[in-house]
Amino acid sequence: MEFKAGELAALTGGKLQGDADTIITGLHAFDMAGAGELTFAGGPKYLARLDRCRAACVFVPVGFDKPAPMTTIAVADPKIAFFSVLIKTHQPYKPEPGVHPSAVVAPTAQLGRDVHVGANAVIEDDAVIGDATQIGAGACVGRSTRIGARSVIHPNVTLYYDIQIGDDVIIHSGTVIGADGFGYVEHEGRQIKIPQTGTVVIHNGVEIGSNVSIDRATFGATVINEGAKIDNLCQVAHNVQVGKHAILAGQAGVAGSVQIGDYAVLAAQAGVRDNITIGERAIVGAKTGVSNHVRPGEMVFGIPAREIGEAKKQLAALSRLAAHVKPLLQLARKAKNEEAP
Amino acid sequence: MEFKAGELAALTGGKLQGDADTIITGLHAFDMAGAGELTFAGGPKYLARLDRCRAACVFVPVGFDKPAPMTTIAVADPKIAFFSVLIKTHQPYKPEPGVHPSAVVAPTAQLGRDVHVGANAVIEDDAVIGDATQIGAGACVGRSTRIGARSVIHPNVTLYYDIQIGDDVIIHSGTVIGADGFGYVEHEGRQIKIPQTGTVVIHNGVEIGSNVSIDRATFGATVINEGAKIDNLCQVAHNVQVGKHAILAGQAGVAGSVQIGDYAVLAAQAGVRDNITIGERAIVGAKTGVSNHVRPGEMVFGIPAREIGEAKKQLAALSRLAAHVKPLLQLARKAKNEEAP
Amino acid sequence: MEFKAGELAALTGGKLQGDADTIITGLHAFDMAGAGELTFAGGPKYLARLDRCRAACVFVPVGFDKPAPMTTIAVADPKIAFFSVLIKTHQPYKPEPGVHPSAVVAPTAQLGRDVHVGANAVIEDDAVIGDATQIGAGACVGRSTRIGARSVIHPNVTLYYDIQIGDDVIIHSGTVIGADGFGYVEHEGRQIKIPQTGTVVIHNGVEIGSNVSIDRATFGATVINEGAKIDNLCQVAHNVQVGKHAILAGQAGVAGSVQIGDYAVLAAQAGVRDNITIGERAIVGAKTGVSNHVRPGEMVFGIPAREIGEAKKQLAALSRLAAHVKPLLQLARKAKNEEAP
Repeated sequence: MEFKAGELAALTGGKLQGDADTIITGLHAFDMAGAGELTFAGGPKYLARLDRCRAACVFVPVGFDKPAPMTTIAVADPKIAFFSVLIKTHQPYKPEPGVHPSAVVAPTAQLGRDVHVGANAVIEDDAVIGDATQIGAGACVGRSTRIGARSVIHPNVTLYYDIQIGDDVIIHSGTVIGADGFGYVEHEGRQIKIPQTGTVVIHNGVEIGSNVSIDRATFGATVINEGAKIDNLCQVAHNVQVGKHAILAGQAGVAGSVQIGDYAVLAAQAGVRDNITIGERAIVGAKTGVSNHVRPGEMVFGIPAREIGEAKKQLAALSRLAAHVKPLLQLARKAKNEEAP
Repeated sequence: MEFKAGELAALTGGKLQGDADTIITGLHAFDMAGAGELTFAGGPKYLARLDRCRAACVFVPVGFDKPAPMTTIAVADPKIAFFSVLIKTHQPYKPEPGVHPSAVVAPTAQLGRDVHVGANAVIEDDAVIGDATQIGAGACVGRSTRIGARSVIHPNVTLYYDIQIGDDVIIHSGTVIGADGFGYVEHEGRQIKIPQTGTVVIHNGVEIGSNVSIDRATFGATVINEGAKIDNLCQVAHNVQVGKHAILAGQAGVAGSVQIGDYAVLAAQAGVRDNITIGERAIVGAKTGVSNHVRPGEMVFGIPAREIGEAKKQLAALSRLAAHVKPLLQLARKAKNEEAP
Repeated sequence: MEFKAGELAALTGGKLQGDADTIITGLHAFDMAGAGELTFAGGPKYLARLDRCRAACVFVPVGFDKPAPMTTIAVADPKIAFFSVLIKTHQPYKPEPGVHPSAVVAPTAQLGRDVHVGANAVIEDDAVIGDATQIGAGACVGRSTRIGARSVIHPNVTLYYDIQIGDDVIIHSGTVIGADGFGYVEHEGRQIKIPQTGTVVIHNGVEIGSNVSIDRATFGATVINEGAKIDNLCQVAHNVQVGKHAILAGQAGVAGSVQIGDYAVLAAQAGVRDNITIGERAIVGAKTGVSNHVRPGEMVFGIPAREIGEAKKQLAALSRLAAHVKPLLQLARKAKNEEAP
């Protein structure tokens, strides 16, 4: 890639200050960017350090008009502008279409146009793979599982049988979709396995990180709705419904039959007990354990989860009370003694 | 499947109310069941909503005798009755016996009768696979590892060398059994690896979810006893002993040399530090961090874990004290000042 | 193996008490060791039980001179002495060099001397594998990824493209290195994926457990420095830097751009939020959630993390205050009422 700063200003509708002919050959983070590189100042903290930045060109927010040692482009949202350039200029690697001779594709499987099937991948009976979809090396696609178009199944992913996956879905390595949900009834001293007769449905535009587990439903389907993003090592139990564009950060876990609203966010290592509803655009803090429904837009924190303001209040109270625990206990004992006789 | 309600009543020893000729063609959850479907009312909450249920037939508890809009069958335990029907009518898929031509089976490996070995699976030297056991596509069975009869090793499972696995064991995809335990000694500024010379023994009837890690012992064996159930993404460290029919829910983690009693339950995301004993039928709450032994039958919660009653008392106390933190601190300061002179 | 106790004393520079001709044929843990076996007494707790130990020979600390029912060898550090014998006598299994005929190795890949490539492994274009390195069955090495000498990549590991791995590195099964970092910008109601253009660099002597996820950087590299040890099911997000000889215990998680100092320890299930610095030799307690920088050598605990002394003080205070919550609340209400008029 090679751009001139003036072209980037035109592309992003920004206002250029400095040399429009500045040559841009790469993009990098603010503190790492060097000669020929573009970056962005994501807030006051970065703007204050602009004179120490070594980038050739920086996206700054509209209204910032101090002198800068490099070319700047003022835009409404520097972060969005920067990443839109990154997205435009980034060419993701596409393997050649075709089935590697070492791959095992069942004769009854249907492959669309321009499908790539990597070395030692396995596609079982009656599976259907949409146009331009990639199946990575060593990945297994179970019988009757259907994948849409332009999806990327990375190496060593395992898709069980009868799963449905949409278009433009990305699933990273080590992830397992459609294993049996964790259901037993204790009977005469044994855990009897409850058959998991349902499936998993993953809608368009979902991305799932590495080593994620998404279980099939007991009945019906575990559903990941359009555009949701699930980070590495997350656990999604049977019958869960994840809303559109919702986010599950690393190692979050969701127990059976939970409903997560559109645009809701579970921060890292959060957990939600079974049969809970998390409202639209709600935020569950990191390491939080949710045991009651969370209202739309609400932010909760703690174990068990409380509204964030209440959680902070309790944490602050404990810190302050702990500093005065001795006189408090003396008062309490005295009051009790006075009351007793 | 197709049953008449009268047949189900006979099968479960229940008392039918309504039309014994009601045709049942499927099973479903209470809120999802529709025409031709069987479900169960698992408690008062469901019984109260019985008139809104669209199922053709419902298992209800003995003693429930109100009129219902569908055929009912009264049984001692509706949930058990329902799932016993599900288990009876569910036909799990069995792949054809035989070794796929793309699988790599060492000449010294021994395969029992009716073993299935999937595409691109690998079975190393001196491994022993019992009758009717299935090895999924892409799974690896290390040298000298022994698996009993009727077990199901799903695709892309990894079993290291010298592991012992019993009969009727199910291991889901992505799970790794027998990797080295995490043991080092710091010596002259480096972490020196302690050889993990032991093994893993998994007894009959155990089910292990997807992406689970169970490490081999330093000496002796990490042991998962009969009928225990381990959910997705659990961590079982070296030398751990998991009791019979014990349950580890999703993302639970158990450090080295922990002993978990029979029928004990670790709820989701719980953790247990090394060398701890969890008593028989003890329950460790979700997200709990256990750092002391837990007595048989005891239920604990919190970080660090406390007896559940004490944990709840502390949570309630904090919530109430936080609401009065100002006057409490004033009293404490006043008492301190009075004392000081 | 077969040793005489006298040889072990000479080997470790220890002082033998008892029979120098005692034959040692194996090593085991203190409580498990039996006839012909060597063990060590790691502290007063074990020394006090020495007369119940059935080992043939025990390493004890210098200065311990009580009579023992077996041969003893007094050394400065019994644990180090014991494990040094274990390391000396343990012969890790080495598969034969060579490429299994079922493996798929791209013609442009470069393999060093004595490389082992297991059955159904896949090595993509331009990958470079150093001398005596082992690639396990079913493992995938992405294009242009480089691995040094004497490293062990266990079965079913996935290495994405352009990753750099040093010498003497061990990576256990199910682990995924170099998947895309979890980066999106919300724009017009959708999460837009930020291309992850960086890489992962893993330095010499690192060991990584099973089912670990280490993501590639957005720009630059996620770096695991020399000798660091990462346990099973850990999450290492994009742009993280893990210090030399640092330790991440089971299921620990580290968010984007975190810097972990040399020799720092994250205990099991700990989590660190993005952009945090953990100082050299700092210790993050089990299940702790770090949201502020941690100073070198500091130990922190709790959610959110506090200095360990403060955390313990708060826990103790809560326990004591909860026992007196009634009189405390009465006092608070009374004080409030007195103030009010």
